[in-house]
Amino acid sequence: MKFTKMHGLGNDFVLIDCIEKEVENPSQLAKEMCDRNFGIGADGLVLILPSDLAEADYRMRIFNPDGSEPQMCGNAIRCFAKYLYERGLTEKTNLNIETLAGMIRPELILKDGAVELVKVDMGEPILRRSEIPMVGGDQEQVIKEKLVVGTETFEVTTVSMGNPHCVIFVDDIEKIELNNWGPQIETHEVFPEDINVEFIEVLNKDEIEMRVWERGAGITLACGTGACASTVASILNEYTNRKITVHLAGGDLVIEWAEDNNRVYMSGPATEVFVGEWKL
Amino acid sequence: MKFTKMHGLGNDFVLIDCIEKEVENPSQLAKEMCDRNFGIGADGLVLILPSDLAEADYRMRIFNPDGSEPQMCGNAIRCFAKYLYERGLTEKTNLNIETLAGMIRPELILKDGAVELVKVDMGEPILRRSEIPMVGGDQEQVIKEKLVVGTETFEVTTVSMGNPHCVIFVDDIEKIELNNWGPQIETHEVFPEDINVEFIEVLNKDEIEMRVWERGAGITLACGTGACASTVASILNEYTNRKITVHLAGGDLVIEWAEDNNRVYMSGPATEVFVGEWKL
Repeated sequence: MKFTKMHGLGNDFVLIDCIEKEVENPSQLAKEMCDRNFGIGADGLVLILPSDLAEADYRMRIFNPDGSEPQMCGNAIRCFAKYLYERGLTEKTNLNIETLAGMIRPELILKDGAVELVKVDMGEPILRRSEIPMVGGDQEQVIKEKLVVGTETFEVTTVSMGNPHCVIFVDDIEKIELNNWGPQIETHEVFPEDINVEFIEVLNKDEIEMRVWERGAGITLACGTGACASTVASILNEYTNRKITVHLAGGDLVIEWAEDNNRVYMSGPATEVFVGEWKL
Repeated sequence: MKFTKMHGLGNDFVLIDCIEKEVENPSQLAKEMCDRNFGIGADGLVLILPSDLAEADYRMRIFNPDGSEPQMCGNAIRCFAKYLYERGLTEKTNLNIETLAGMIRPELILKDGAVELVKVDMGEPILRRSEIPMVGGDQEQVIKEKLVVGTETFEVTTVSMGNPHCVIFVDDIEKIELNNWGPQIETHEVFPEDINVEFIEVLNKDEIEMRVWERGAGITLACGTGACASTVASILNEYTNRKITVHLAGGDLVIEWAEDNNRVYMSGPATEVFVGEWKL
């Protein structure tokens, strides 16, 4: 089975072209392929599929290393879009991709015929508590709300970008024990569908630093929807301007929450590392 | 650049055929390729080279993720031998491979024309303190000798299998904080060339369990020379018989320290996972 290994800011994916032939049991395949010693090693398995929707160019499905299927992944969609263009699967630079989080619209920014950056319209943020989803509390928006986790109390802002995020602002991001707090918040009883967790340090009005614990995947170097949700949360808390740079362990993303149409735009790189043929 | 990804008990390697064309700066290439997010991801880069020695079939060089070059790796040599046979680079089932640890002699155990197991003559253990190398102490052999590491005192047995190993027997292997003690022992002042660290729990006369901290690589799922050194140490301490099964995180190895010729034999599997072409 042929595959391509790519990464967006070190958030790395195995991509498989399923346009001609679908993969059987992708959940199990993701577990095997994503294993970093016995498999290929990746943060996720991405399937390139035809879409039944007239307005969509292609359909993306993504599976976590534990076999679960998230709605969307902002880093994966950049890899996905670059793959389509550079493999000649499309000549368009504005694409419509069907995902479980709805239609995603990546724009390819070219340089010398190659894809340099991918700008993605990540859609409008979902802020209503019941749609995060999150239970409890009497405010419809969850902005700096106290959340008791074990012996600690955090102030959380929750934002869904198709998948749910719990954003926590701290003074010193290096002091956070992410391996400890990540899984406890991910599976906290107030989040019926579990949640992604972002710790954020605001550097100035134009820059934030982020560390992320991804639902079903653990610590990763970068999470695109997490960077978007954290930008929205930073703006809701009046910490930053509407277009900022998010510094992640794997590199930088530029995120804008547009005032005119309420949509979030993410620009960042995608890199092809190797092509392979799976033997097992 | 074409490569093959293989593993021996989850100890995984990128193999590159350098018979026709040598690789430039393999140390730097290992750093790039072994990176688990931005590269291919592996515990080591293995180069397949011709040998200038008349008695050798091929020469193996191996590089750690940090770019350093260990003398040998018992899991890598199994992958190496299987690769040679299954790629048609040899028809022999008893091979002579030149390494920095001297000549290594893997024997291929076939099943239906494929390599099922590889038995490796790992040579004679080196037990003399000065040849480990280890400084201090007045006994020529280091068997259950006290070693102060920070606030703790361990009883260590040291064995070289071409590369140096510090073996420590404990009652409960799960309680050892390997991430804490591994690097401290690895770089301890009594080991002028640093050392690999194995914690061992003796299950019975025929089985031991092992956790390993590899010099230059950190925690890995398995270490072939470490399993050999640990078997020798178990026998020196009269804990086990001369042929035992070593349980590692990645699977099992059978190790025998032969009484007649003083040599150590290791049998275990090797698995090809995928072939690839590196883009960067």
